[in-house]
Amino acid sequence: MAKFKFGIIGFGFMGHEHANMLANFPDDIELVAVADTNPDQLTDAPEGVHTYASADDLIANETLDTVIIATPNPSHIEMVKKTAAAKINTICEKPAAMSVAEFDEMVKVTKEAGILFTIHHQRRWDYDYRIMKEVYDKHMVGDVYVIKSQLYGVNGNMHDWHIYPEMGGGMLYDWGVHLIDQMLNMVDSEVDSVFADVRNVINKEVDDYFKILFEFKNGVLAEIELGTYYLTPKRAWFMGGNGGSAIIDGFAGEGTIVHTTRLLENVPGKITMTAAGPTRSFGPPAPGVLYEEPLPEVHVSHKNYWEHYLKALRGEEELMIQPQQVRRVLSIMDAIRESGKTHEAIRFEH
Amino acid sequence: MAKFKFGIIGFGFMGHEHANMLANFPDDIELVAVADTNPDQLTDAPEGVHTYASADDLIANETLDTVIIATPNPSHIEMVKKTAAAKINTICEKPAAMSVAEFDEMVKVTKEAGILFTIHHQRRWDYDYRIMKEVYDKHMVGDVYVIKSQLYGVNGNMHDWHIYPEMGGGMLYDWGVHLIDQMLNMVDSEVDSVFADVRNVINKEVDDYFKILFEFKNGVLAEIELGTYYLTPKRAWFMGGNGGSAIIDGFAGEGTIVHTTRLLENVPGKITMTAAGPTRSFGPPAPGVLYEEPLPEVHVSHKNYWEHYLKALRGEEELMIQPQQVRRVLSIMDAIRESGKTHEAIRFEH
Repeated sequence: MAKFKFGIIGFGFMGHEHANMLANFPDDIELVAVADTNPDQLTDAPEGVHTYASADDLIANETLDTVIIATPNPSHIEMVKKTAAAKINTICEKPAAMSVAEFDEMVKVTKEAGILFTIHHQRRWDYDYRIMKEVYDKHMVGDVYVIKSQLYGVNGNMHDWHIYPEMGGGMLYDWGVHLIDQMLNMVDSEVDSVFADVRNVINKEVDDYFKILFEFKNGVLAEIELGTYYLTPKRAWFMGGNGGSAIIDGFAGEGTIVHTTRLLENVPGKITMTAAGPTRSFGPPAPGVLYEEPLPEVHVSHKNYWEHYLKALRGEEELMIQPQQVRRVLSIMDAIRESGKTHEAIRFEH
Repeated sequence: MAKFKFGIIGFGFMGHEHANMLANFPDDIELVAVADTNPDQLTDAPEGVHTYASADDLIANETLDTVIIATPNPSHIEMVKKTAAAKINTICEKPAAMSVAEFDEMVKVTKEAGILFTIHHQRRWDYDYRIMKEVYDKHMVGDVYVIKSQLYGVNGNMHDWHIYPEMGGGMLYDWGVHLIDQMLNMVDSEVDSVFADVRNVINKEVDDYFKILFEFKNGVLAEIELGTYYLTPKRAWFMGGNGGSAIIDGFAGEGTIVHTTRLLENVPGKITMTAAGPTRSFGPPAPGVLYEEPLPEVHVSHKNYWEHYLKALRGEEELMIQPQQVRRVLSIMDAIRESGKTHEAIRFEH
């Protein structure tokens, strides 16, 4: 079987990541060309791969099965129009677009062109996320009332063009879309309202902290909090249900499920002394009250995204990252920014 | 100097706590009488202390400098009317009242009686809280953008009458008032809006989980989260500013302040591999990037509340727990319950 010919437009950080990833599929994929307007970024292109100074040149000179768009965010719309016009299947980096209107246009032109069009939401195959999704799907902590997804960094650092608002910088566009996409893909419900705070703590022009609360119609309260300057690095999850709590700290999914051996709804006054005086409800638990259960095992990696895409390319599977899902993430980002500005909760899906 | 004569109305858990506390001031305070409608609660009254089956009997038969009201929450209003009518200085347990209207009436009758009237908000002298307040007041993490106050228990347990809504049960009335009072007393700003979620996770009739976000007008985002059934017990604080982060885990104030040696606003693409694929912003920090500073030392205990009250009784100090502060806490509790019901942010102090 002939290999699928891939090209990459935008050969910066993610462009290189894609080239490395494609090399995992030597029997199925051949990376034939990369393009970047900055010649410095092309100097380490893999041997034998054609390099171009523009998307137009790449498209004009190559016959490709799929092109990956990994240019800065505001150019995605222009690039997708080019690849759609050339009728090349297109994988676009996230955030797909700078606005819902832009994304709608992308969907329109790619649909008219009859090509595959999807977004690189590979973090649906993140290990930590999939463990929590399994806990949720299998009802391992009972009826869930709260989910927290937290990501904290140390230096307030942003990379390359991510510090420039005019290039679609900021953490909401960078990591926010992933964390939101994960949450919306986990909780099988419409959103009733969204309340959010979005900040520039260290970076002058782009957001580097956000907290987002989702009130889902099925009763789940979900929170996403990210800070690049939190100084206590962590990738954490908490899921609380009426049958236990699940916690993860780390991308590797280190964590546990905690249950209680006895549920006390009402106990007479027994005092626990703490440094801050007596508390009956919040002292340390007696031995044996809590017990742990291992988190479920999952077997996923970002390679799964590409394995899936190859099946879609062969017509064996429907695309899993669907346009309406991507549109929902972008719509909720609009609500988040509005809430961040107004301090109001924004009604969603009403 | 003659000792101040104290009485306690309501000799349950907190009534006993008060008796124990007053015993710390043998030169200044004499507990002369306690009253409870439940004779079982009076069996272990300290020797020599008169016991009464009702507040009326206690008030009619004793000459007191101060009475402490520690009855279930909905009866506070009735008790305060009795002590005001008898012109006895009054310390009332929290929550002062079931509504702002009730509290306004309490303030009116105690003012007309010309007595001291204050609320037992002793947790303003909590060790963990005062450390964080010191960090805030002394600007030790720069301009603060976020404060989190978290309290998690293990069993969903509620004590005594706290499981009954008709007795003013639930965690918002029990611990919520303390945590809100602390936050409002720390952040020197009006509140722009409040968004909250209040739940009955395990207890059928009263709240046992809440999350409250305050958008203060000075730019601070503050969060209070409490769960009695969180199963990962913790009393934690996080304070993030543009000059560092302060963390506490425990009523004893265990924690640290973290700073960074270098602030990276923009760095070229250097990849950190994690279990979930490459991330540049959220890998582990390089050695030497973070350094710690000890939290400030504070010397406080709940005894300070009573030392202060004795000074107020002697006319040496103004009461620190002021009616307008208590009223503000109760008003914000109304906003919290409304937000919890509607999923809307509630505008405050506008």
